[in-house]
Amino acid sequence: MMRIAIIGTGNVAWQFANAFREKHNVEFIYGRNAKKAEQLAQSVEAAFSTSFNQIPRDLDLYLIAISDDQIESVAGQIPEVSGIVAHTSGSVDLTVIPHEKSGVFYPLQTLSKEKVVDWKKVPLCVESQHAESLKALTELGSDLSKNVQQIDSQQRRAIHLAAVFACNFSNHMMANAQELLRESELDFSILKPLIEETVEKALEVGPDNAQTGPAIRGDEKTLEKHQNLLENHARLLEIYNLVSQSIQDTRHE
Amino acid sequence: MMRIAIIGTGNVAWQFANAFREKHNVEFIYGRNAKKAEQLAQSVEAAFSTSFNQIPRDLDLYLIAISDDQIESVAGQIPEVSGIVAHTSGSVDLTVIPHEKSGVFYPLQTLSKEKVVDWKKVPLCVESQHAESLKALTELGSDLSKNVQQIDSQQRRAIHLAAVFACNFSNHMMANAQELLRESELDFSILKPLIEETVEKALEVGPDNAQTGPAIRGDEKTLEKHQNLLENHARLLEIYNLVSQSIQDTRHE
Repeated sequence: MMRIAIIGTGNVAWQFANAFREKHNVEFIYGRNAKKAEQLAQSVEAAFSTSFNQIPRDLDLYLIAISDDQIESVAGQIPEVSGIVAHTSGSVDLTVIPHEKSGVFYPLQTLSKEKVVDWKKVPLCVESQHAESLKALTELGSDLSKNVQQIDSQQRRAIHLAAVFACNFSNHMMANAQELLRESELDFSILKPLIEETVEKALEVGPDNAQTGPAIRGDEKTLEKHQNLLENHARLLEIYNLVSQSIQDTRHE
Repeated sequence: MMRIAIIGTGNVAWQFANAFREKHNVEFIYGRNAKKAEQLAQSVEAAFSTSFNQIPRDLDLYLIAISDDQIESVAGQIPEVSGIVAHTSGSVDLTVIPHEKSGVFYPLQTLSKEKVVDWKKVPLCVESQHAESLKALTELGSDLSKNVQQIDSQQRRAIHLAAVFACNFSNHMMANAQELLRESELDFSILKPLIEETVEKALEVGPDNAQTGPAIRGDEKTLEKHQNLLENHARLLEIYNLVSQSIQDTRHE
């Protein structure tokens, strides 16, 4: 059982604070905003404060779950403590935490306060230069998830960037489709079965093996038809041409 | 019960021929390749031929399930018949079929011979200028699917183009992610839960409402970090910049 402080009161802080409770003691919440800190503290029956000085020094883990660009400054204000000081970010280096037992505990999932998380499936990426801390973070991760991986800062950066392509950019491609359908007074839902099948296949055989469509087939006639349809959509035409070219460039020979 | 001829022996021909059998009579298969035509004909207990002259004239439906750029030429060679002549393409106009009872019967799904199709969920887009034929195609569609929609050629073009964005381009974004992960010796499967959640959310609330990531947040620091990581990946950097810009351009004000 670990004694834990959560630094932060956002979505990730809420989700972790509640998830840890099952097997561990969440004893303290730090937050800039007193009201938010109190709310989270009440929900997990912990103490709280808006002052770094009030943070108890003898806990096992201080988990910094705040926005990426605040982590370095906040970590610098956490006093010397006996336990591990770890952040939860995908894009911030381990080295921004000045404490000896520094670590990372990064959940590779999009989290909101409202939606219940199936922690079993969430990849938890842990990192520490301190062997004992790495072991402790790995065990803590295993209490939540079946998928705990030791990932260094360089790999974590790659994962974060890859997630932008695979998720943020995919979503934007769906938004572009929605825009095109709207203009023809069609509902986006007509694409639902095709999207589901596409993603299922990509996850099953790998997206490199699952590519279909006119670009990979080299179907110039259809590409030209589509370009004509997008004549008055400069933004979409530019994306269409660049992504089609990229698909053709990466085609298996 | 309709008496049906299938023109073609590819994936779509196989899937439809077998799906129709439950409630209708597939009586004839036309194919350029005798062996393939014979195989499909045997599987559904129909006659077959490689000659357009052998096509029986008195059936109810002649379904042209062949590659897009062959449809016009093949339709021109089908003799005068009593029934409907319809193609199954998403991108070809109704007007390329010279027969009076011309139609379209377009399954909005990716089909292969091997994988069993859950027809109930597949949107079937039907079109005809001939009222009686439109009714017959709609009824035939309803025998397979709960989602039959009357879609004109202009709308069908929009759907086909939208599907390229939503599916082919999304898949390529996942392939790009896979490429980035491989360089850091990571497996694509680590993104699986995040991709599933992303798509689930996009289908639930709409991709326009589901957009997340540094571009929509206007998080310039992270965008810059990612651009630096892609310094030596000209192709991926170009996509990163264009898609990030496009996300920012379409952001809700």
